[in-house]
Amino acid sequence: MRVFIVHAHPEPKSFSGAMTAAAVEALTGAGHEVQVSDLYRMRFDPVSDRHNFTTVLDAEYYKQQLEEAHAAAHDGFAAEIQAEQDKLFWCDVLIFQFPLWWFGLPAILKGWVDRVFAAGGRIYGGGKWYDRGVFAGKRAMCALTIGGPPPIYSEQGLNGPIESILFPINHGMLYFVGFTVIEPFLVHAPARISDEVRRAELARYRERVLTLATAPTLIYPKLADYDERMVLRPELRESARPGR
Amino acid sequence: MRVFIVHAHPEPKSFSGAMTAAAVEALTGAGHEVQVSDLYRMRFDPVSDRHNFTTVLDAEYYKQQLEEAHAAAHDGFAAEIQAEQDKLFWCDVLIFQFPLWWFGLPAILKGWVDRVFAAGGRIYGGGKWYDRGVFAGKRAMCALTIGGPPPIYSEQGLNGPIESILFPINHGMLYFVGFTVIEPFLVHAPARISDEVRRAELARYRERVLTLATAPTLIYPKLADYDERMVLRPELRESARPGR
Repeated sequence: MRVFIVHAHPEPKSFSGAMTAAAVEALTGAGHEVQVSDLYRMRFDPVSDRHNFTTVLDAEYYKQQLEEAHAAAHDGFAAEIQAEQDKLFWCDVLIFQFPLWWFGLPAILKGWVDRVFAAGGRIYGGGKWYDRGVFAGKRAMCALTIGGPPPIYSEQGLNGPIESILFPINHGMLYFVGFTVIEPFLVHAPARISDEVRRAELARYRERVLTLATAPTLIYPKLADYDERMVLRPELRESARPGR
Repeated sequence: MRVFIVHAHPEPKSFSGAMTAAAVEALTGAGHEVQVSDLYRMRFDPVSDRHNFTTVLDAEYYKQQLEEAHAAAHDGFAAEIQAEQDKLFWCDVLIFQFPLWWFGLPAILKGWVDRVFAAGGRIYGGGKWYDRGVFAGKRAMCALTIGGPPPIYSEQGLNGPIESILFPINHGMLYFVGFTVIEPFLVHAPARISDEVRRAELARYRERVLTLATAPTLIYPKLADYDERMVLRPELRESARPGR
């Protein structure tokens, strides 16, 4: 199994750092291959603009999706974008490792998606999305730390259900480009747990990364379940749709 | 009325650019005051780390919220963060102007939130959140362009309901720090509409920004509606909760 971890935390000693270290150790120890993009260490620039590309379609008016499609057709992605795309094609499983900041990805990881997930058919587009996406057959998972305790992220919790908060990431980013999405791995309030609970959480995470190939996944509808306006067919509306 | 527009688009000629220009013109023409943070033009750095601060609490282990609280107590925010916080305190209404990228804020704006919305009681914390938040009494609104047509973002649409997609922003960022959240202003597929429709959409936006003080808002529960675990009291669970 080839696992690609995109890691987004400014402090190597953080619990996120410990999780990625544990994952790398467990996976390589079991004979799997791992690549890690440690975005803070790489000083990855998350701002999406013309520097995504070595090519220029229209120097007067920057339309990002058209520049992406042009770059896809002319081998025109900047080296740091190309390198990340190559890792996506290389892997069997993609992991986003991050602390939940403001109910979403830290900007350095959001911008990795903004820049790397490019239009024009290479990563998505031309009918290639969701279950017909470029990465169909591969798996992906969010592994995240969350400041508050579980009740505040429950169905009736003050901050909203974690499934809803992660919907734009799990469905909108990972499933959008074709990945089958594994149930997220959540660690609550790592700053306020005992050393014993920390060790137990890391053991639980090692177990999860060794079972990525079979871990339970989120069930989403397929493109064929939608009508020509891209609205779910009425007879299918009782299906499970996590986070909606 | 004092209006603070945080603008996040790499192309000044874009429809987002036209919207902000129309808002500034309409508001100043009516005697209101406006400040715009044009994040791409400012080359705003969205990566949150030690450079948010001039102070250092712990040089060995970076815990962001503790560094934020320390900076809040010791006047230790970097000048570019302090300047944005000052505009938040100055304004009566905050507008986020952006194109919806990957079902969320462009990274440059997500990182503006990551860095500017700091813990420690200045922007939130110490019991100051949601309806008891620092910015209670002020209003905020998302104004966004969306690539696809409305049906794909409807309740049963392929991409998911727009209310759910915006929940982490409207509820998790704006309401979290106390703003009353105005219904978002959406423009679908600006790249594929006629000049006549564009003009009509800009006229509709001018009208909206001139009525920000009275425009309909999203109805969320208040802190008093939650029990001590921060779970909504059972008798209130039929209340409207947009996007959940």
